[in-house]
Amino acid sequence: MNAPNQLSANEALEVISGGQMRVSTLVQACLDRIEEREPTIHAWQYLDKSARLSEAKACDSNPTKKILHGLVVGIKDNYDTHDMPTGYGSPIYARNRPAADAAVVAQLREHGAIILGKTVSTEFASSPPPVTRNPHNPGHTPGGSSSGSAAAVADYMVPVALGTQTLGSVIRPASYCGVVGFKPSYRRISCEGIKTLAESLDTVGIFGRSVSDVELVYRVLSKTAPAQLDDYQGPTALALCRGPDWDKADSDAQSALEKFSERLRAKGIRVDDIELPESFRDLAVATRIIHDMEMWRAFSDERVRNFGLISPELQVRFESASRLSVDDYEGAINKGIRCRQELPGLLKGYDAALTLSATGEAPAGNITTGDPVMNSPWSLLYTPCISIPMLQGRSGLPIGLQVIAPRFHDAGALRAASWLHRNMQEK
Amino acid sequence: MNAPNQLSANEALEVISGGQMRVSTLVQACLDRIEEREPTIHAWQYLDKSARLSEAKACDSNPTKKILHGLVVGIKDNYDTHDMPTGYGSPIYARNRPAADAAVVAQLREHGAIILGKTVSTEFASSPPPVTRNPHNPGHTPGGSSSGSAAAVADYMVPVALGTQTLGSVIRPASYCGVVGFKPSYRRISCEGIKTLAESLDTVGIFGRSVSDVELVYRVLSKTAPAQLDDYQGPTALALCRGPDWDKADSDAQSALEKFSERLRAKGIRVDDIELPESFRDLAVATRIIHDMEMWRAFSDERVRNFGLISPELQVRFESASRLSVDDYEGAINKGIRCRQELPGLLKGYDAALTLSATGEAPAGNITTGDPVMNSPWSLLYTPCISIPMLQGRSGLPIGLQVIAPRFHDAGALRAASWLHRNMQEK
Repeated sequence: MNAPNQLSANEALEVISGGQMRVSTLVQACLDRIEEREPTIHAWQYLDKSARLSEAKACDSNPTKKILHGLVVGIKDNYDTHDMPTGYGSPIYARNRPAADAAVVAQLREHGAIILGKTVSTEFASSPPPVTRNPHNPGHTPGGSSSGSAAAVADYMVPVALGTQTLGSVIRPASYCGVVGFKPSYRRISCEGIKTLAESLDTVGIFGRSVSDVELVYRVLSKTAPAQLDDYQGPTALALCRGPDWDKADSDAQSALEKFSERLRAKGIRVDDIELPESFRDLAVATRIIHDMEMWRAFSDERVRNFGLISPELQVRFESASRLSVDDYEGAINKGIRCRQELPGLLKGYDAALTLSATGEAPAGNITTGDPVMNSPWSLLYTPCISIPMLQGRSGLPIGLQVIAPRFHDAGALRAASWLHRNMQEK
Repeated sequence: MNAPNQLSANEALEVISGGQMRVSTLVQACLDRIEEREPTIHAWQYLDKSARLSEAKACDSNPTKKILHGLVVGIKDNYDTHDMPTGYGSPIYARNRPAADAAVVAQLREHGAIILGKTVSTEFASSPPPVTRNPHNPGHTPGGSSSGSAAAVADYMVPVALGTQTLGSVIRPASYCGVVGFKPSYRRISCEGIKTLAESLDTVGIFGRSVSDVELVYRVLSKTAPAQLDDYQGPTALALCRGPDWDKADSDAQSALEKFSERLRAKGIRVDDIELPESFRDLAVATRIIHDMEMWRAFSDERVRNFGLISPELQVRFESASRLSVDDYEGAINKGIRCRQELPGLLKGYDAALTLSATGEAPAGNITTGDPVMNSPWSLLYTPCISIPMLQGRSGLPIGLQVIAPRFHDAGALRAASWLHRNMQEK
């Protein structure tokens, strides 16, 4: 058996419910791993080790049949927690103690999970890079804004963690960190209690090391039926959708995806190149306009009362967002509505669409969390998106394959992604 | 000149900026009115009179050119305020002190307004009736959930106040209390910092005693250009849209609207009866499903940790909501999307559509805040809705005329409503 902190969520739950492992053992193993690696990775914003060990012991002396009994979960620090500080990545909220748990945190607890601690978020889940480092190479960014959650799962500190995606804050860090990241359909899961960044885009996301682990957490939070990953026999037809911003991807990432498509075709799976129509051009621009206008509005209190505590980078973004017009914003909202109407027809007949999860490998250094351009159009299209670690860049760092389906076809996207992840690893 | 508390927002701002009235005078007059009437009306959840008088004095000694300098505003107690308790209408939050202002509260302050206090909200802005009474007849409900804001404006305690609408919580209480209520297009104004009830429906709303007062506040919060109410020469064509639930309206309300339409026609204005197509049937049912599912999700923390502090009425609603299926919910979401696509075509060529703001007069007693069925379809259609006090029921209580336009045509709806309010009062 693997070390407890290396178990998948499903494996851990199985051995806990079978009496072969105590919850305390799992929590201790995760804490030990964090103890060892945190000085390098900086994935955690808040962690109360003794409180979590006590909680684990209480679980052990009171075994339940709850579906997530004893599962250890990391939560991005833009989710409210009633018993842990919640800083939203900003010094303005250094002493913030919310009155309640975010809806999904309460749901995880209701179903038996242990919230291990709060993971590092970039400032207000926006772009300024945080201290967190990429477990595959600490000289590189883990991506953002769900930096801590992606890195913690990649580094075996927790089996699963929650993040949020507004432009590309789940799929991109999953890609850079070589883990599975899932952004479900918009409104499949409640955003209550998450610090608002952009209301029209904010979505709960889940990180894990297998598709079945993210599917488990997703199913609990969305109340959907099991996606029956194991019953799926593999895709018949896939749409290779380079997307409107393909030219922004690095050449090694482009050729890794092309090569992967060839391997699929060699396996007898139909892979059709599909071109999104002209109306989908500039979707990333439209998404950015919605993001900036809604962010500018949402952070009114912070702008008015605490502008000096906002980073210079965000200050500049607020200033430029303040000049956006309502017409530009509503044009972008309407563009999103029209493209969302068109998409299901374009993907009809395919098990899923494939594209890159990021423009390439994780950038070196700490001046950017990377470009969300491969993600933001899909955020505005409200589709389920799953990043699975299937590709590699020129320096050997992971690049994610992004698996996409129409809105509310989350189960289909999960089935395709799970099959690809288990059957298409390069030997 | 009227007593200061009877001035409209526009009048008050004019005399303040012209040096004919001090901000302190306005605040004192509002507080005096509250002192006199609050024991009957119960509109206020929180009020710190001396703090507000100090704030007013500071305004007087530091005059600014801010557009809302010295305007007194009431805020429903489901908006976060950093300097006032925020109870969301629930004992669970009796000691809640938010870390920040809701976005629109911060924006009002940024533009010079004084937040007079927090007005009574029903429990979690949902249906259980609060203590607030209708100023037109304290034996009747003011409606809900924005009970305190509607009553406070109707009773001359403040010139304007903010509420929220999820099903019908702005338009209905405005109708019952005989004031102007405006629910702008969905996403015209940020909902950040408002306690989430149902993410797909929650909308900021504004109460005032004239359309130009709500237009002023709306314009500040939405960053839109002035609606130029005075340049408008009156409607050419209006759509009389009884709506899918006309048979649920009282006969006196029905005939008041029919009679009003006849008066319009007698003035030479074209008023066409328009029938919404079959696809719009059961929109109120779809809206209720979305409301219940999203409410059930949003209040996970309260359900899990404080179920005993939830009212029996809401407990029952949570229990029934817990049995809703994801398929029903998403069917309702998709129905909303389809009907929103169809609506602009149906209203093409009309200055606005007219319908009832409520099924009739405010119900007597205190066992219900009234039926939102005349409102909830429009909430899901994301349209601007304005209630203007133009009609009367059989016992002489007010009934609102609801003026509607397609999404993002808020200026058009405001212009039509303002013209009707000023030119069609029964002599």
